[in-house]
Amino acid sequence: MNENKVVKFSYEQLDRLCMDAFQKFGFNAKQASIITDVLLTADMYGIQSHGMQRMVRYYKGIQKGTMKVDAKPEIVFETPVSAVVDGHDGMGQLNGHFAMELAIAKAKKAGVGIVSVRNSNHYGIAGYYAKMAAKEGMLGFSCTNSEAIMVPTFGRQAMIGSNPQAWCVPARPYDFLFDASTTVVTRGKLEMYNKLDQPLPDGWALDAQGEPTNDAAMVLDNIVHKNGGGIMPLGGNTETLGSHKGYGNGMVAEIFSSILSMGTTSESTMQNGKSGICHGFMAINLNAFGDGEAISQHLSEYLQKLRDSAKADGHDKIYTHGEKEILAMADRKANGIPVIDKTMTEVKDLCDYLDLDFADYFGEYQPPKAEGMFVGNY
Amino acid sequence: MNENKVVKFSYEQLDRLCMDAFQKFGFNAKQASIITDVLLTADMYGIQSHGMQRMVRYYKGIQKGTMKVDAKPEIVFETPVSAVVDGHDGMGQLNGHFAMELAIAKAKKAGVGIVSVRNSNHYGIAGYYAKMAAKEGMLGFSCTNSEAIMVPTFGRQAMIGSNPQAWCVPARPYDFLFDASTTVVTRGKLEMYNKLDQPLPDGWALDAQGEPTNDAAMVLDNIVHKNGGGIMPLGGNTETLGSHKGYGNGMVAEIFSSILSMGTTSESTMQNGKSGICHGFMAINLNAFGDGEAISQHLSEYLQKLRDSAKADGHDKIYTHGEKEILAMADRKANGIPVIDKTMTEVKDLCDYLDLDFADYFGEYQPPKAEGMFVGNY
Repeated sequence: MNENKVVKFSYEQLDRLCMDAFQKFGFNAKQASIITDVLLTADMYGIQSHGMQRMVRYYKGIQKGTMKVDAKPEIVFETPVSAVVDGHDGMGQLNGHFAMELAIAKAKKAGVGIVSVRNSNHYGIAGYYAKMAAKEGMLGFSCTNSEAIMVPTFGRQAMIGSNPQAWCVPARPYDFLFDASTTVVTRGKLEMYNKLDQPLPDGWALDAQGEPTNDAAMVLDNIVHKNGGGIMPLGGNTETLGSHKGYGNGMVAEIFSSILSMGTTSESTMQNGKSGICHGFMAINLNAFGDGEAISQHLSEYLQKLRDSAKADGHDKIYTHGEKEILAMADRKANGIPVIDKTMTEVKDLCDYLDLDFADYFGEYQPPKAEGMFVGNY
Repeated sequence: MNENKVVKFSYEQLDRLCMDAFQKFGFNAKQASIITDVLLTADMYGIQSHGMQRMVRYYKGIQKGTMKVDAKPEIVFETPVSAVVDGHDGMGQLNGHFAMELAIAKAKKAGVGIVSVRNSNHYGIAGYYAKMAAKEGMLGFSCTNSEAIMVPTFGRQAMIGSNPQAWCVPARPYDFLFDASTTVVTRGKLEMYNKLDQPLPDGWALDAQGEPTNDAAMVLDNIVHKNGGGIMPLGGNTETLGSHKGYGNGMVAEIFSSILSMGTTSESTMQNGKSGICHGFMAINLNAFGDGEAISQHLSEYLQKLRDSAKADGHDKIYTHGEKEILAMADRKANGIPVIDKTMTEVKDLCDYLDLDFADYFGEYQPPKAEGMFVGNY
């Protein structure tokens, strides 16, 4: 990464910008605060690819009508432990927040709540929703499908989304929070490499013939135009290193999102001005297995053993999942949130569109001139 | 693989041998048939590492008392959607079968059933139990921890098991059945490479210093003696290719097995003559999300699209999960079940121990002489 191309702003600056922008788009203050919180939590967690960097996709999505500002999530099927929600093409963050609150409410009463959502949009980081359950002392699970970017093992056509799965369980001193795409990396990572003009590492992406490539711009363009190629599943593109496992985990996310909800599967999303993205959510009450506090303590002790275990030569730290997010938050609070300067060009464009004064948020700072770098379907 | 070292026997031959052996050990006919079915289903599915190849570990486990023949699984906590089962050191297959039947019964009534099992033993292929739910028209999930073999990212000490997750959902012409360890490969695969004197592929295993190695015998010995090293998580040993993701998925299996049940975590299993292995099971009634048949059909159509999608250069087939098992079953029915000849040496030894006539099952066939190749903690 070229550090010269990264600028830093405070949480408050970005929060004010996002709140104003989403309200300008027509969301009420509560809605704007949910969308903003999902977005900036990604930046605070150090998941730069899913924070401000994605702002332009929401902007374009709302502008083009793919994301409907006045949509309300609707429960179309329900039991005491389950529900299917139709998102009616509303914002993914609002549908996701609604659905996870529903899953949590069911888990409080019945022990478990599973909710599958159809007709939604990109919902940001999966971990945000899993964490909502952990805040209530529960095990949380969240997953989503997305525009197809994952090429199945032995294929050359993207047929599955990045399809992240996030799991969160309460623990001390910090929750277990595992949030990962089932591809080797996310599309957002490719977008960042593209913005920074860096070649992709080996083992990440495939060209239109299904052959490995390091060219981020080409892969992103191929994804948008459905020319073939895409990102490899976790485990690469051969069975020797487990390609079929990443592919299988992607399918699990697809099942909880688009299959259970009878929604749009990844390969058919983003067509005819409609996203069709689907999500899945699960909340499991730890008290349904005995003493929830003791279970959380049992996990905490195991996580501590992992952190204390012997390190490989050249390493002095073993992370448990969720720790990097805690460290990133402390850093962002002290030093500000890093944003790639080309993202700020997109933010400037957004401000102009919404008639917001860029300088009112960012003072003297001037982003680089636009060079048509936005790559996306919205 | 050196084909000269593999011999083939019919399902009936191996079934009769297993049934007789387990009944000789003291199991009743129903128990013996459950254990045998789990074991031989692995061989029929082509998952050779978890079939007859593992027979010796059950034999040693029962012989040493780590696996108790007279144990009965006990429900120690229960709600309409959940349960914790104490396996009392009984056979993993019997505990697993009991727990998944319980999860299915709950899901029939309440929509979902989640069961966590402690104090069990190696239960064979995770997919067997997930498939039990699919046979009832449900989504099935099963996972287990195991003796620690996975080295966490940046570590050099095995702290997590192979920790497979299996998911099965009814579909036509065959169910979606995804069953995979969260390590790059299983310990059983290393045992097979060891028996065949083959070097391990790159990217599979770590030595006691946490450095990559191709030496199967050394890694297996280090695991047994807890000397350090082990198998890499899916995604290898660097974050660039997603090591933390395989590690995270391993943790999810740990949470559903040893954490929810307040059982023994992987790094503390196989101590003081006790296994302590734990399992997790979930059954989700598709009708809890609307029309289960329609949901299954929706999945079937997506799976067909995947199989029909464009192939990479040099490949003419894209598999969906569960297809290889169907193909392997057809092959085994027609051509017999392949078994490594050194495994037959172990079977011969078992027959001698139990006073069963090896020739009665395998006729003229003579396995190679024993060379002390068994590596294991049982």
